[in-house]
Amino acid sequence: MKWIRFSTPARTAYGILEGEEITEVTGDPFGGYDTTRIVHRLDAVKLEVPVIPRTFYCAGINYEEHIRAEAAALGIEPVIPQKPDIGYRAVNALIAHDEPVIIPADATEQVQYEGELAVVIGRKAKHLTEAEALSCVLGYTIGNDVSERSWLKTDRTMWRAKNADTFKPMGPWIETEASLDEMETTIRLNGKPTARFRTNAMIFGVATYIAAMSRYLTLFPGDVIWMGTEGVSPNLVHGDVVEISISGIGTLRNSFLAESRIGER
Amino acid sequence: MKWIRFSTPARTAYGILEGEEITEVTGDPFGGYDTTRIVHRLDAVKLEVPVIPRTFYCAGINYEEHIRAEAAALGIEPVIPQKPDIGYRAVNALIAHDEPVIIPADATEQVQYEGELAVVIGRKAKHLTEAEALSCVLGYTIGNDVSERSWLKTDRTMWRAKNADTFKPMGPWIETEASLDEMETTIRLNGKPTARFRTNAMIFGVATYIAAMSRYLTLFPGDVIWMGTEGVSPNLVHGDVVEISISGIGTLRNSFLAESRIGER
Repeated sequence: MKWIRFSTPARTAYGILEGEEITEVTGDPFGGYDTTRIVHRLDAVKLEVPVIPRTFYCAGINYEEHIRAEAAALGIEPVIPQKPDIGYRAVNALIAHDEPVIIPADATEQVQYEGELAVVIGRKAKHLTEAEALSCVLGYTIGNDVSERSWLKTDRTMWRAKNADTFKPMGPWIETEASLDEMETTIRLNGKPTARFRTNAMIFGVATYIAAMSRYLTLFPGDVIWMGTEGVSPNLVHGDVVEISISGIGTLRNSFLAESRIGER
Repeated sequence: MKWIRFSTPARTAYGILEGEEITEVTGDPFGGYDTTRIVHRLDAVKLEVPVIPRTFYCAGINYEEHIRAEAAALGIEPVIPQKPDIGYRAVNALIAHDEPVIIPADATEQVQYEGELAVVIGRKAKHLTEAEALSCVLGYTIGNDVSERSWLKTDRTMWRAKNADTFKPMGPWIETEASLDEMETTIRLNGKPTARFRTNAMIFGVATYIAAMSRYLTLFPGDVIWMGTEGVSPNLVHGDVVEISISGIGTLRNSFLAESRIGER
């Protein structure tokens, strides 16, 4: 089942997507809903970020090749995490499928994608064992953890390197029936594949993270956990289009526009 | 003017506090409101966190003595920030005035307070100059950036050291007329003063942070920015009561309870 959040000129609502048709609901998948008789065509609505999280979690580094490559780029020794210490991203930076990432005017050329599985929490949970951890998951969507790598080196925090406005595309929808073990992530730049990896080949998996987190913190309906990315990205430039596909979920697509050149469009 | 968020057995609402009386409103201070004829006594309601932020910002280190003392405790050289790089805290950890901080069962003895000014954003804002930065501020409240310092050393992120459930008391209310230059922060442990400092003696002030942040990110109504703390805290134990007062705003009071000893109460 695919949960979609969308806007029409009249309103923003949740709906259930089947094929190319959306059945609008009242309420939402977190607090309860009723289906209506209103049906929209997928291509006639604007997609919205599938959920605005209460807390926006992100594993940051969770695949070995990515860690080794980024360490090499920074000129430091790679440090493989020994335990699942979750990190954070910021809600201001979220944009939906097909909305453009705006590259700030003073960014360097080192603007890159990171294609990530995004876990959507469906119910309040604390003190879950690893065996029961996935029981609080509503479903999965896709995130692009856009990064300006020069700012990762110069700044004390990741505030603008990772959390500048538009740097966190998420979508296109929430899939509730995907299987972690069967997922493969494929990233395309302007239509050409640039990365492919087994989504679940994480250093610490979804259940491991949730069990560790829920020992100290309460997960709430609508919280999201981004699970990190594998490999490295080329530098992105004005006009590039990045598509992140995870088998069983769908494809998140966003163009990249330079703030300094938007007037030229 | 004091904005208060409170609960009665019937509902949670915003109100305007004058003396010991709360005039309930419909709506909220961010999206618009109407006053009602319903008046509550302050001591007859439960205070709630004054706002659940969309993004929860925190300066982290912003006073010189605190930076030098924490560096000494970690056995490292103090690093005074050269620019205002904002950080983040997590919504799950927020609790209200008079709610207890629960010290996790496996925390070390190094659980400490940090008394902080909390800035509450009142309107959507981007690209503000330093001169106009304070125009987006609705008012000020108080935060206690509770920290488990051993986890700050051992963990890759601040997830449990700073963001374990109940580690972020905020309140008691939002004061819209306080003057930054006249504020003094006083911290009391079990009634005895343990710290006192000029609130506005920050390395980077409120306007400087807002101007820098708003260059890259949009501030939204209800976002909060915690401004850091001065000095050092003693280690806190089961039964301790911490009061953080900022002149012109009020006093945030929370007790500390050990999870392992709650059964003994």
